[in-house]
Amino acid sequence: MPAPLRERLRAGPQLRLRDDDAARTPLRARDGRDKRSRHDIKQAERDATAGLTEQIARLQEMLFAQRRRKVLIVLQGMDTSGKDGLVRSLYSRLNPMGVRAVQFKAPNDVEAAHDFLWRVHQQVPVAGEIAVFNRSHYEDVLVPRVQHQIDEPECRRRLAHIRDFERMLAETGTVIVKLFLHISSDEQRKRLQARLADPEKQWKFDENDIVQRKRWDEYRQAYEEAIVATDAEHAPWYIIPADAKTHRNLLVSTLLLEILGALELAYPAPDQELARLTIS
Amino acid sequence: MPAPLRERLRAGPQLRLRDDDAARTPLRARDGRDKRSRHDIKQAERDATAGLTEQIARLQEMLFAQRRRKVLIVLQGMDTSGKDGLVRSLYSRLNPMGVRAVQFKAPNDVEAAHDFLWRVHQQVPVAGEIAVFNRSHYEDVLVPRVQHQIDEPECRRRLAHIRDFERMLAETGTVIVKLFLHISSDEQRKRLQARLADPEKQWKFDENDIVQRKRWDEYRQAYEEAIVATDAEHAPWYIIPADAKTHRNLLVSTLLLEILGALELAYPAPDQELARLTIS
Repeated sequence: MPAPLRERLRAGPQLRLRDDDAARTPLRARDGRDKRSRHDIKQAERDATAGLTEQIARLQEMLFAQRRRKVLIVLQGMDTSGKDGLVRSLYSRLNPMGVRAVQFKAPNDVEAAHDFLWRVHQQVPVAGEIAVFNRSHYEDVLVPRVQHQIDEPECRRRLAHIRDFERMLAETGTVIVKLFLHISSDEQRKRLQARLADPEKQWKFDENDIVQRKRWDEYRQAYEEAIVATDAEHAPWYIIPADAKTHRNLLVSTLLLEILGALELAYPAPDQELARLTIS
Repeated sequence: MPAPLRERLRAGPQLRLRDDDAARTPLRARDGRDKRSRHDIKQAERDATAGLTEQIARLQEMLFAQRRRKVLIVLQGMDTSGKDGLVRSLYSRLNPMGVRAVQFKAPNDVEAAHDFLWRVHQQVPVAGEIAVFNRSHYEDVLVPRVQHQIDEPECRRRLAHIRDFERMLAETGTVIVKLFLHISSDEQRKRLQARLADPEKQWKFDENDIVQRKRWDEYRQAYEEAIVATDAEHAPWYIIPADAKTHRNLLVSTLLLEILGALELAYPAPDQELARLTIS
């Protein structure tokens, strides 16, 4: 019996993204052992993910019915790492009334005039809700750092602010799950190239993606430091190898089911008298 | 060739909800003509809805890519009429990054201290987005009216405010679609009764539902007047017979596909030079 994904994917203080293989597929049989075609393996992973997401949906309904705990899922990753695809995979079966996807873009004037946690705090999940942050407050220790808009002491202060903020959220009932979708530079190149070539996807292309791509190593370094500095028992980071899309979704749904399953959720106990009431 | 649903379901000035059969199923063969079992008919409707929703998802992506028009879907209906179920059916295939479900509950203190459109205006869709209002500003001409918290002149003023507000939204690029999910009193009784008996659903029961139910005729009357007073070419109301759940979802997806299809959406024209760019 392998260890739970919560342990196997957890980022530790020794995290070295350079040495982490973004193409590994821990839920697949080792090379050569699985005789099915690549296509069949992917389809099986899609089906398995769908089944797990059904189970997650059941737990989500209990979470919503109890209206006690909150769940915050933070999604980070380089451009094209699959954040949107993952949100879509999750949403396909969850109840939209209890799940909220929040996309954080570059801050507007009003947001930039506040501290960087201001706009984020406004979007945290309420009791019973799951909020999925597609990018997050972590952008504020990545982009400005790589672009030298903030210096090292300011970056350290921000990381401390994030630690304090997340501890407060956890202590007030929020289950925090932070996912880093790890793709390789080569996989990103392929995905950007495919985006350019597809007339139905070219609109997603942003010239800034190429500018950022040139600073791959610096971003990877900034991610690594931010992850190590903010990984905590109450706000753990998980490193999701994300070069293989269907496997990535399967990993995340397996992991989320483990985490939600451990919360011992249940429907509120039904009232027997109410069950006997006749509606006229 | 039957007329489009946009015409067949459209509420007219002659609307009489009392005479509208909530159990009718215009997309099914007439009684006795379809030899399949009830179960098979429902499954076929689910499959057809899934197929239509895939097509809607494609148009939604184009809407999002263009970032020009906005779509506002207003869902209204008595308790248990299926607003949540419909949102869920829609969401299962749309891209959550371009669709936002907003649930309006009883106003909180701050909201109640403002005009009734204040909190609604904050949630209207942005360019490229579809917003689904699960309940809406229409609640403010229903509940307070039936409970005599506002008098007739105030109700007429509010209806005029709604007309002006929706005209402004339409003239600034919003496609408005208003759906009244019409269930019969008997169907509601069955659904509430089933909710009470099911230990996994009893938590959804609200004693207030029974209080409201006693005023069925008054609510129906208030709905009818609000719908007739605010139906307009740029903000049309559609009456969706909703006693049959799978047929209701099929009707709505067919209708939405007609409406979005008429917008002549397309992906932005690809840039040929960009398509030839090589990413390093």
